[in-house]
Amino acid sequence: MSQLRRDPITGRWIIVNYEKIVEPEEFSFAKVAKSESIEKCPFCYGNENLTPPEIVAHRKTGDANSPGWTIRVVPNKYPALGALGELRKAGFGIFDRMNGIGAHEVIIDIPEHSKDIADISDGQAEEVIWSYLGRSTDLRKDPRFKYILIFRNYGKSAGASLEHPHSQLIALPIVPKRVNEELQSSLEYFNYKDRCVFCDMLSQEMNDKERIVEENDFFICFAPYVSRFPYEMWIMPKNHESHFVSLQKDEVFPLATILRNSMKKLKKLLNDPPYNYIIHTSPINGHEKEYYHWHIEIMPKLVNVAGFEWGSGFYVNPIPPEVAAKNLVGVK
Amino acid sequence: MSQLRRDPITGRWIIVNYEKIVEPEEFSFAKVAKSESIEKCPFCYGNENLTPPEIVAHRKTGDANSPGWTIRVVPNKYPALGALGELRKAGFGIFDRMNGIGAHEVIIDIPEHSKDIADISDGQAEEVIWSYLGRSTDLRKDPRFKYILIFRNYGKSAGASLEHPHSQLIALPIVPKRVNEELQSSLEYFNYKDRCVFCDMLSQEMNDKERIVEENDFFICFAPYVSRFPYEMWIMPKNHESHFVSLQKDEVFPLATILRNSMKKLKKLLNDPPYNYIIHTSPINGHEKEYYHWHIEIMPKLVNVAGFEWGSGFYVNPIPPEVAAKNLVGVK
Repeated sequence: MSQLRRDPITGRWIIVNYEKIVEPEEFSFAKVAKSESIEKCPFCYGNENLTPPEIVAHRKTGDANSPGWTIRVVPNKYPALGALGELRKAGFGIFDRMNGIGAHEVIIDIPEHSKDIADISDGQAEEVIWSYLGRSTDLRKDPRFKYILIFRNYGKSAGASLEHPHSQLIALPIVPKRVNEELQSSLEYFNYKDRCVFCDMLSQEMNDKERIVEENDFFICFAPYVSRFPYEMWIMPKNHESHFVSLQKDEVFPLATILRNSMKKLKKLLNDPPYNYIIHTSPINGHEKEYYHWHIEIMPKLVNVAGFEWGSGFYVNPIPPEVAAKNLVGVK
Repeated sequence: MSQLRRDPITGRWIIVNYEKIVEPEEFSFAKVAKSESIEKCPFCYGNENLTPPEIVAHRKTGDANSPGWTIRVVPNKYPALGALGELRKAGFGIFDRMNGIGAHEVIIDIPEHSKDIADISDGQAEEVIWSYLGRSTDLRKDPRFKYILIFRNYGKSAGASLEHPHSQLIALPIVPKRVNEELQSSLEYFNYKDRCVFCDMLSQEMNDKERIVEENDFFICFAPYVSRFPYEMWIMPKNHESHFVSLQKDEVFPLATILRNSMKKLKKLLNDPPYNYIIHTSPINGHEKEYYHWHIEIMPKLVNVAGFEWGSGFYVNPIPPEVAAKNLVGVK
């Protein structure tokens, strides 16, 4: 028999399958390719001239746009949005439109072509988080932007257009729909209960203990009770905080290690699956201090989203999150 | 430069790329497999014993569960929801849950293993529509169900688990979130304008003429102004009608042919792409007569949904719908 579960944050239902639980080795997902030659990879040492000039880089040696960096941030060569110009809004019959103003940056956060977050050192993982914070802090100063989205697509089927693992950042002139939905629902919950819905979720997860994957003094990584996807994981700060950029200096290292360790378990258990992870945070100048709680959602791409999911917004998950967490915890 | 467009029905924004328009032959999507041997295919003639016994079939010859059918409807062997039992709802801390009651049926609507909607005759296409209507009408009588979702997944990357093309139907004990969002927004539009938002969209498309793919006396097929995906198409009845099951007898054939013809253009232009199509309709016993308008959304699976889409609800479309429609119309 299956079970339907509903998330109070988004009102989303999932269908959890209990009848025929898929084993980790049974998923037939698209393998992450490792074939592209390093000579032509624009994100490898020595090919810095194949990207637009860097916006910023962490480096101990070398000049700008040359090898020696540990993190390199460049404008996306084929941006979804363009950084130049003024925002212009207009109607078109019943529709609205505007020009595509925004920043689209690539954060090349691992110099090695075939390493991912799972494979890097504590120190490099910490640099990744610092780069996210640095770019966020910088772009928040541009008054045209209302939201900064940081995400990582790993593997072609998860939307990565280049093999060399990397993160991306998009700064948007509006608060996106998906974020507004979360803000709206968490405000409603707060108005009703005078508590943050994410804090309540956190305390339920910490009491149940059944779905926790990793934990340290500052963060928890768990398979959410309402996981849309098999082996979905969320990383959440234990202390209530609405903005990712409010991360304290002493929280950077714990965040880096919980992210790296969780990704390592996922990679090992499922044999290097494609995935997306996304930082969910409050809008720039957002006033959600009390009711929103930033977090990272990690969504492995093990199954294909089909007509039922598109038509209903229901997700069918072939692995109860309790089983997913148990399997992940068991990875040595 | 890219353009942002917003849909009044869902509030969804898309980013349309104008800079580097992808040609039809440039998409590198997962090919639809045709390798599975017909001997073992549960949806081919002679293998009727490999599925659960049929619920209903259209046939000119043969007994139940034997060859000779043109349409065969069977319960899904691995249903997302189970048809037996009473609905039980409960809380679980901050979450809601219920048991997985529902019907999950497979509509084997093409006897030939390697033919799809694009390849069938007018008569067979008409039977497909009749089978959708027949199952909908039947399942609406079950008081446990609130919504009937009919969809088609074609190709593994679009979520099809078997090669032999088929449609599916899921009857749900609740109105799904995605449908509620559409209903809510179209009600708001109606309250404000006293008109159906879909009728307004239809009249704008018919005036602009730029995005129309196919048309007959009763239906229009167009690439919507706010297409999330490259070559997305919507089929909409010209006369306002909220429920798919209200389809009149003389509308069945025109619907069948516009669907078949549109799918034929898509298949030919893009070399047999995977896709999902979904019938969007009012809930059972829904009172949306005035403000909701049923339609079919056809979503080719040419690109992968990535972190940006998941995190924002924005979709990046590499083909302006105007170009998509022009290319589709040009298919001979």
